[in-house]
Amino acid sequence: MVPEGEDLAFTEKSLIERVRARAGRGKGVVLGMGDDCAILKVPAGQEMLVTTDFSLEGVHFRREWHAPEVVGWRCLTRGLSDIAAMGGEPVAAFLSLGLPREIAEGWVDRFFAGFLELAAEFNVTLAGGDTAESEHGILADIVVVGSAPKGKAIRRSGARVGDRIYVTGELGGSAAMVERLYAGRRVKSAGYSRYFKPVPRVAVGRWLRERGAASAMIDTSDGLSTDLGHICEESGVGAELNAELIPRAVIAKAGGEVDLRLALHGGEDYELLFTVRKNKRVPERIAGVRITEIGRIVRESGMQLAEGGVRRRLEPGGWEHFKRNS
Amino acid sequence: MVPEGEDLAFTEKSLIERVRARAGRGKGVVLGMGDDCAILKVPAGQEMLVTTDFSLEGVHFRREWHAPEVVGWRCLTRGLSDIAAMGGEPVAAFLSLGLPREIAEGWVDRFFAGFLELAAEFNVTLAGGDTAESEHGILADIVVVGSAPKGKAIRRSGARVGDRIYVTGELGGSAAMVERLYAGRRVKSAGYSRYFKPVPRVAVGRWLRERGAASAMIDTSDGLSTDLGHICEESGVGAELNAELIPRAVIAKAGGEVDLRLALHGGEDYELLFTVRKNKRVPERIAGVRITEIGRIVRESGMQLAEGGVRRRLEPGGWEHFKRNS
Repeated sequence: MVPEGEDLAFTEKSLIERVRARAGRGKGVVLGMGDDCAILKVPAGQEMLVTTDFSLEGVHFRREWHAPEVVGWRCLTRGLSDIAAMGGEPVAAFLSLGLPREIAEGWVDRFFAGFLELAAEFNVTLAGGDTAESEHGILADIVVVGSAPKGKAIRRSGARVGDRIYVTGELGGSAAMVERLYAGRRVKSAGYSRYFKPVPRVAVGRWLRERGAASAMIDTSDGLSTDLGHICEESGVGAELNAELIPRAVIAKAGGEVDLRLALHGGEDYELLFTVRKNKRVPERIAGVRITEIGRIVRESGMQLAEGGVRRRLEPGGWEHFKRNS
Repeated sequence: MVPEGEDLAFTEKSLIERVRARAGRGKGVVLGMGDDCAILKVPAGQEMLVTTDFSLEGVHFRREWHAPEVVGWRCLTRGLSDIAAMGGEPVAAFLSLGLPREIAEGWVDRFFAGFLELAAEFNVTLAGGDTAESEHGILADIVVVGSAPKGKAIRRSGARVGDRIYVTGELGGSAAMVERLYAGRRVKSAGYSRYFKPVPRVAVGRWLRERGAASAMIDTSDGLSTDLGHICEESGVGAELNAELIPRAVIAKAGGEVDLRLALHGGEDYELLFTVRKNKRVPERIAGVRITEIGRIVRESGMQLAEGGVRRRLEPGGWEHFKRNS
């Protein structure tokens, strides 16, 4: 597994040396890079959480829109956000990285700078991965391993009729930024840094898990309508949202809140969407993050959106990452 | 993490449904696909092993040379062989799969047939992964999670001066098959099935770990000279090989054993290379697999090859997967 560099004609072993030099041994990591497998220790009474996510050039990012640090950061965010959505504690990351022959070493260095800045913030060890030469574009696959006390990880399937639906932070900001990128606008200074460097809601997930506060949880990587649909499907319930309550992101210099459409269907916000039994109370902020009640779980299957006294059916939105030729 | 299918224009959710239908819940897997993370349980006294490996079209396989079942099988072999090389027990696999829009559903079905045939043989659960549309070619990244008793996994770094060097099976067969593929020969009937469906040496690794028989171990995915080089580097020792003792593969219909060059430097054999203290004995077969002593660990750094009374320096060979344009 870990990086010998045979496949890397472009920088020979230099990439591997770079990665190994920066990888570490942290809590939970007995043996990191440099062997056939990494070895992780699992404290008694804990279960392991494992998640894997692609970040593909042209599908999930574009080199002309996203600085290398941003690509590295967002690559790791995808995995950390999945750990947060179980109420888990991230432990170690594994990065498989395919790079085209022409890639500059500087790009790779900056990618790792972004990746490792976020890893350090969450005390996550880069414990292994793989490298290969890619024939077309940059390919990254991130694996994050975490832990949670036995039986305590928060699943998508625990929502029950009457539960209230909450979301962290604000929605639609990332989708609004993608629209601005498509429109060819300069967005670097556009004042929505969470799009470029989303901080996964690990502390909120931990808080909810420690207090047994959430009955079901998911992260909003694919958009509110899609991700709430997953909770409904896995829990065998339906949901009603109140459009006026949905917290919409505000893009600086763009004049106010984003459209409801973006808050409902836009992806990559990496907020937490969770349900709470109706007899439990949730504070207005958890770990410094705004918490908003946006609806409730109902018996009838499917999702409904109430807006200005009118109720209409809400279909999962199908957030699409940008395509090279679209 | 797990497969919602948003990124898959070509078969919509059908691929995900397929994967989920075939994924299971086995030993060690508390929660498989369908949530933000999989949940794995770790028996008391065990450590987790994690390995990740790319299988990229044009780099690690070609559609015109490798049947879909073969691509799926070999993809999983790469991970299982790394678990074997630690003396570990495989538990669960995670598959990130990027597919081009034009891929036929039949190809994907056959890929999974090969993948899951091998998974079933080793009682490994497909517990998660990711899917995306790839803009160029098929991209697979396999993660295998395994376990080993605390402190008992066999590392690359344990070789000491005087240890004897052993290898399982025969070497060079896969490289010989790649040469035949390059030469445009028909190889399907060429009688070296281990190239197309290599069975990882999990039972041998387990035997060696249970008896504390091996001081260091690695799998020969990159070729004997490269992989022995890793053991030497990680252990801070050198090695001497006896050319006459190296077990060479025999390709049916190709007239005898493969060249020594291929046995020394050819990759993808997925055999185990291990060292044993000189006062320990190793049987001629373990779990039905031939075991051959091929040299010994020495103090002087670097590797030497003794052949016909002459000793020469052996450099790591640098096995190269085939490139599309080479």
